[in-house]
Parts: sequence; C-alpha cells; structure tokens
Amino acid sequence: MDKTTIATCTLGIIGGGQLARMLAQSATQLGCKIVILEKAADSPASQVASKTILGDWDDAKSLIKLAEACDVITLENEFVKASALAGLEESGKAPLFPSSRTMAVVQDKLLQKQALAAAGLPLPRFMAVASRADIERAGKEFGWPLVLKKRCNGYDGKGNFTLRTEAEISIGWDTLDGNKNALYVEEFCPFKSELAIMVTRGRDGQMVSYPLVETVQEEHICRTVVVPAPILEAAPNIAEQAKQIALKAVEQVGMVGSMGVEMFLRRDDTLCINELAPRVHNSGHYTIEACECSQFENHIRAVLGWPLGSTSMRVPSACMVNLLGEGNGSGSPHGLAGALSIPGVHAHIYGKVASLKGRKMGHVTVIGSHPVETLEKALKASKHLRFGN
Amino acid sequence: MDKTTIATCTLGIIGGGQLARMLAQSATQLGCKIVILEKAADSPASQVASKTILGDWDDAKSLIKLAEACDVITLENEFVKASALAGLEESGKAPLFPSSRTMAVVQDKLLQKQALAAAGLPLPRFMAVASRADIERAGKEFGWPLVLKKRCNGYDGKGNFTLRTEAEISIGWDTLDGNKNALYVEEFCPFKSELAIMVTRGRDGQMVSYPLVETVQEEHICRTVVVPAPILEAAPNIAEQAKQIALKAVEQVGMVGSMGVEMFLRRDDTLCINELAPRVHNSGHYTIEACECSQFENHIRAVLGWPLGSTSMRVPSACMVNLLGEGNGSGSPHGLAGALSIPGVHAHIYGKVASLKGRKMGHVTVIGSHPVETLEKALKASKHLRFGN
Repeated sequence: MDKTTIATCTLGIIGGGQLARMLAQSATQLGCKIVILEKAADSPASQVASKTILGDWDDAKSLIKLAEACDVITLENEFVKASALAGLEESGKAPLFPSSRTMAVVQDKLLQKQALAAAGLPLPRFMAVASRADIERAGKEFGWPLVLKKRCNGYDGKGNFTLRTEAEISIGWDTLDGNKNALYVEEFCPFKSELAIMVTRGRDGQMVSYPLVETVQEEHICRTVVVPAPILEAAPNIAEQAKQIALKAVEQVGMVGSMGVEMFLRRDDTLCINELAPRVHNSGHYTIEACECSQFENHIRAVLGWPLGSTSMRVPSACMVNLLGEGNGSGSPHGLAGALSIPGVHAHIYGKVASLKGRKMGHVTVIGSHPVETLEKALKASKHLRFGN
Repeated sequence: MDKTTIATCTLGIIGGGQLARMLAQSATQLGCKIVILEKAADSPASQVASKTILGDWDDAKSLIKLAEACDVITLENEFVKASALAGLEESGKAPLFPSSRTMAVVQDKLLQKQALAAAGLPLPRFMAVASRADIERAGKEFGWPLVLKKRCNGYDGKGNFTLRTEAEISIGWDTLDGNKNALYVEEFCPFKSELAIMVTRGRDGQMVSYPLVETVQEEHICRTVVVPAPILEAAPNIAEQAKQIALKAVEQVGMVGSMGVEMFLRRDDTLCINELAPRVHNSGHYTIEACECSQFENHIRAVLGWPLGSTSMRVPSACMVNLLGEGNGSGSPHGLAGALSIPGVHAHIYGKVASLKGRKMGHVTVIGSHPVETLEKALKASKHLRFGN
C-alpha cells in the first residue's frame, strides 16, 4: 500500500502565495509537514511551512530538489510549465497531483476549451487565431463584441481584451502582443450572473462538489462570493445542472485535487463554462468557515490519496469579500481593530510583503443564517481593512 | 497609539507544543508572523512558524533574543519561571502577556488558591504543608482521603497524590519528593462532574467567556469534552454561576489572554474551582470549529490589544476527544484514512516527533445538532487514530 494513503507525510507545494498558505494551514492541521518552492524567502506560504526551497517554479533542478524533500507534490497555480512538471514526473522522485497532463490541457485555454467541447460541455464559441485576419473571420462568424484572449498565463482579466468592433482588432492584437503570444477568441457572452462550483476529485476518481456560488467581479477581479447563489431563488433548477457540468469538466481533464469551475448563467437561463482553475480557487475560500471540510483540506486529502471530506454547509449561508491593495504600501492592513470589532467576522490576512494596486491581500468571510446580513457584515469589515493607502 | 493595536506584527511564543502550534495557526490567519522559543528545532509550533529560536524557556539570554525578534510575547504553558519572565519585562524589549505577576500567582497552586480565596471564590479547603506532621494535622481538619499536591509544575495528574489514610502520608511525601518540592494539601472533593469555562480577558480588562463544557478525565488526562455540558439539563442554573465564578477568577489574577477555569460540580450541586490554567486550554479546543472566534484567536486578539471576538457557538453542540499515545512510536498516526472517512470529523494531528504513552498527540472535534451523535462520531474517529502501537 502507498505509504501516503496511510500516514501523514511531507507535502511539497510549487508556489508560495495565499493559496499555498491556506493549503499549508490545512495540511499541517492533519499532521503533514510542508515544503514550499518559491522565488522569494518570505512568501505567504513560507511563513507557515517547515521549509522553503528558493528557486523558480519552472526550473528542473529546483523541482527535483523539492521532490527529494517531499513524499508528494502539488501546486497552487496553473502557471508552472507543463513540460517542467513532466520532467519532475519522469524523475520518479515524488508523485505529482494534479498531473502534468492535466496541467498541459488546463493551462492552455484553447486546449482546455477543446477538451471541454469534446465532452459535449456547454461553452461560448471559440476559435484559434494566428493573425489579425483570423480575428476578422471570427468576428464575421461570432459577431461583435468578441473577446481576444491569451492562451496561457492570463488571470484576473489580464490576458483578455474585448474587441468592440472590427476596428479594434489591431489595438487588441498589439495589447496582447499577438506576435509573441498564442491567442484565441471567444464569442462575447452576455450573462445574468457569474457562478462557480468547486469540485474535488480523488486519486481514485471519486468526486465531491461544493454548493453553487455567485461571484461578483469588479475590473475582472473577484470581489464578492455569496453562497448559496442568490440566483437560485429565481432559477432553482440550475444548481443540479451546474453540478453535473462541473463534475463532467473535472473528470474530462483528469484533475486530482480541488478545481474551480467558473460558469456564466446566460440571459436565456442556460449555463456555459467560462473557465477552469486546476487548483483551489478564490470562489471556495468561504468553505474554510462554512463547510464541514474546506476546499483546502479536500485538496490535501485528494492529492495524498485519503478519503474526501463532506462538502456540506455547517451553516445556511456565507459570504466572502476579497481585500485588494489600493496602492503601493505595507502588507499589513489599516483598520484591523475596526473590522474585528464586528462580531462573526473571520479575517484572513495573507502576510504579503507589500501591497500593490489590485493585489489580493486578504479576505473576509462571514457565515450566518441570512445571506443579506452576512454580505452586509463582510462588506462593512472589508471597508475597514485597507492596504497601501 | 500602540502600533500593535493597529497593525499585524510579529508575535513571540515561549514554548513550541500543540498549544503554541494552534496559537500560531490563528495568529498567521490574522497576518501575524510567529517566532517560537523552544529547546528542539522540530517542535509542533516550529513547523508552522516563521522562525524558531533554540533555547530554554527560563534562560534570560534566550528570552531577550526572542523579545528582540518580536513586537509582543506570550506563552503556551505555566512552567516558565515567573522570575525569568520578570527579567524579560524589565528589559523593555517587548511587552509580555500574561504578565510575570499573573504567572507568579497562577503557576504556584498555593498562591493561586490563596488569591482565589481572597476574592471569596468557592474552593476545596487547602493548606500549606512543610512536613509530614503538617499533613497529619490537615487530615485531622479536612478528613481523609486528602489530596497532596506539588505547588508548581504539576499537570495531567502528575504532581498529585491522593492519600487515602494517614498511613499513606510517607509514601505520598516520598513520591512527590516533599524534601525538595514545595507541597500543599486540598480536601478531597467528591464531584458529580468536572466542568470548565474558557475566559479571554483583553489588555483593557474587557472579558468574554465561552460556554460551560463538561470534561471527562481518564487517568487524570482529559479524554473528552462535550459542549454544552450535559449536566445543564439537570442543573440549568449552574451555567450562569459558573460563568460568574470564572470571570471573577480571571480578573482576580489579572490575566490577559485566554484562561481555562476548571471546576467541580459537587454532589450538593454547588460549584468550586479546581484550578486555573493561564493559557489556552484543552477544554477549549472545540472552539476552533464550534465558535465564531476560537480561544486561540481570542488569545491572540487579547495579547495584541485588539477587540475580542464573539464566543457564540456556530452550531448547537460539539465534542472533542483527545488522541493519546499508546506507547513509544511515530508521531504519525495509524488509521487516518479510517477516521477521515467519517463525515464531519475534524482531525488535528500535532506533528510531534514521537509518541509516548499518555502523550497528547492530536485531537478530534465533531460539531453538530445532537451531542450524543457528535460524541459517538468523535469517539469512533478516535478509535481509528492510534499512535505508538
């Protein structure tokens, strides 16, 4: 029997940001030791880990060094080159979950969409584009506006450009540097609301899914998450539909671990997948306080081959609000005393060295009986907590 | 304004055991960095801290080194010499909470009892003893059996000896080494149940208290904690009485931070204080999952001068079962997979290097609607999780 299925062990995490930090906190509760691979020594995750290996995520030597210090490896983001991960797997030093194959498919959004389309899953129409002329053809087929996207390394709206008319093709192409970066286009998808579901899939293929949440983005960055999704009052049927879509998507890409499935609810009340995140996800942070087993603990359980935990809510509702940097400054917030004086506020401060405008510096979760009340409380707390101003 | 009241900071913890580990986990969630002072490098708390200073808790130089690395200092146990802590305070390098004065009173059980008695709080009768003859006199006054105790450094029944008759005075005196250790005696207190309340007191004197819990000891070590205390069904009035006793006790010793107040419910349904623990306490571990703000987070908030959090239960009931080592062996448990396959089980494994018979290696918490059901689940999970066998 695989020793990691029966005992606590040392887990390596590629990346040291807030997602790695919260993964580390869950894993240590279960008795695991954590080793982080990150470029800087004082990363959010390093502060709560047994050890940090300094190095680049894509560097073969650093990855081997990490594997030699660990029993199992996982990752916190989709930006590690799949080829580097394949090299790590070939070394045989420590198993990697999710696999380089999963990462190769998901980190390239064109391959991701192709895989999801092959499984018959609902998607906005999309097309690879290799030139300005290809975009023009896509516009003729899908109409305007049209969303031009980088295939790799986009996040929080970075790497996307909405072309309102054909006249904007060139500025979009130049902005995303189409001569250097592989791009594709998607039809513009007007939606009623943005939804997300977290799914955790074990090494044995078993899957559990969390409740459907509604997310609100501001300037392409997730600002609030509310669960259960308020839209369910008007459209109760979509919960089961969304769940089935999410499970099928996660299975299709062979994920092991927790995965975020972002969706749009279109104006005609049909669902389509926006994109997949092959990792724990901002839309699932609320699960720390609100669910029997959080997305983080379930990710740990999945990659270690342990039984997955219950995703049931402990409480009727929850709300999460992200804390974004307002400018350059300290990673320590103003207003902590004010925020903590609101009963029931769970503040998470990520311990980043510095604030930058738009950087995720922390989040606030409130759980309770009434979604409106929890949202109000969380927003009130978030107004106290200010970084870099 | 004190900078620690308005910003995250670096917190030093004297001691690196499981209590320091859980304190560190709460503090890092709030954005603090943690420095541990401990004799060994691989302590449970070191695994989740930014830094460990290797040294003895009582060593003046080590304490100064810790203070130089931190904004505020706290501790996880009552065994650090109050005189060493006073030296730390006199250095002016970093404030210490709780203070050396509080520790001096609480760590010496005779002084503790005298302080509580001076406040008019209910206690078993007690008496200082300097000789076998003193014990004989105490027996004549209080009757037999009589409990002989070390004034300092006792825990989990270690340092206590129950004298059934006058004939056992000598064996008790020798067992506790009365020629070397200062001892005292207490009347034997037959009880219906053992109860505990956690109280957190802020720097400003504000206090919050957690629900009354019932604890079950086996061989003097806490085995289970159930909340709300089942005895409240038969004796509902004692909740408020216990709370008032606990608040008064915590105030009397000038505690800052979370403090455990252990009580007996005597056969005549009156309450008396068993002892105080000037730190987070085993009877409050359930608060991590069951309360809006845990005893750990409230300790952090208290020592940093931040507003205290709500102690309300998030759920109707909770149960905690300690996981004790059965013998020498690994700090990694058998049976993790079995325990985690029970839905709703929260396992905490402390990451200790080795198991010893009776050593606290972890705990399991289950929260839910029905105390009987949660206790059954937690006990079932605890039977899977075995250390050192």
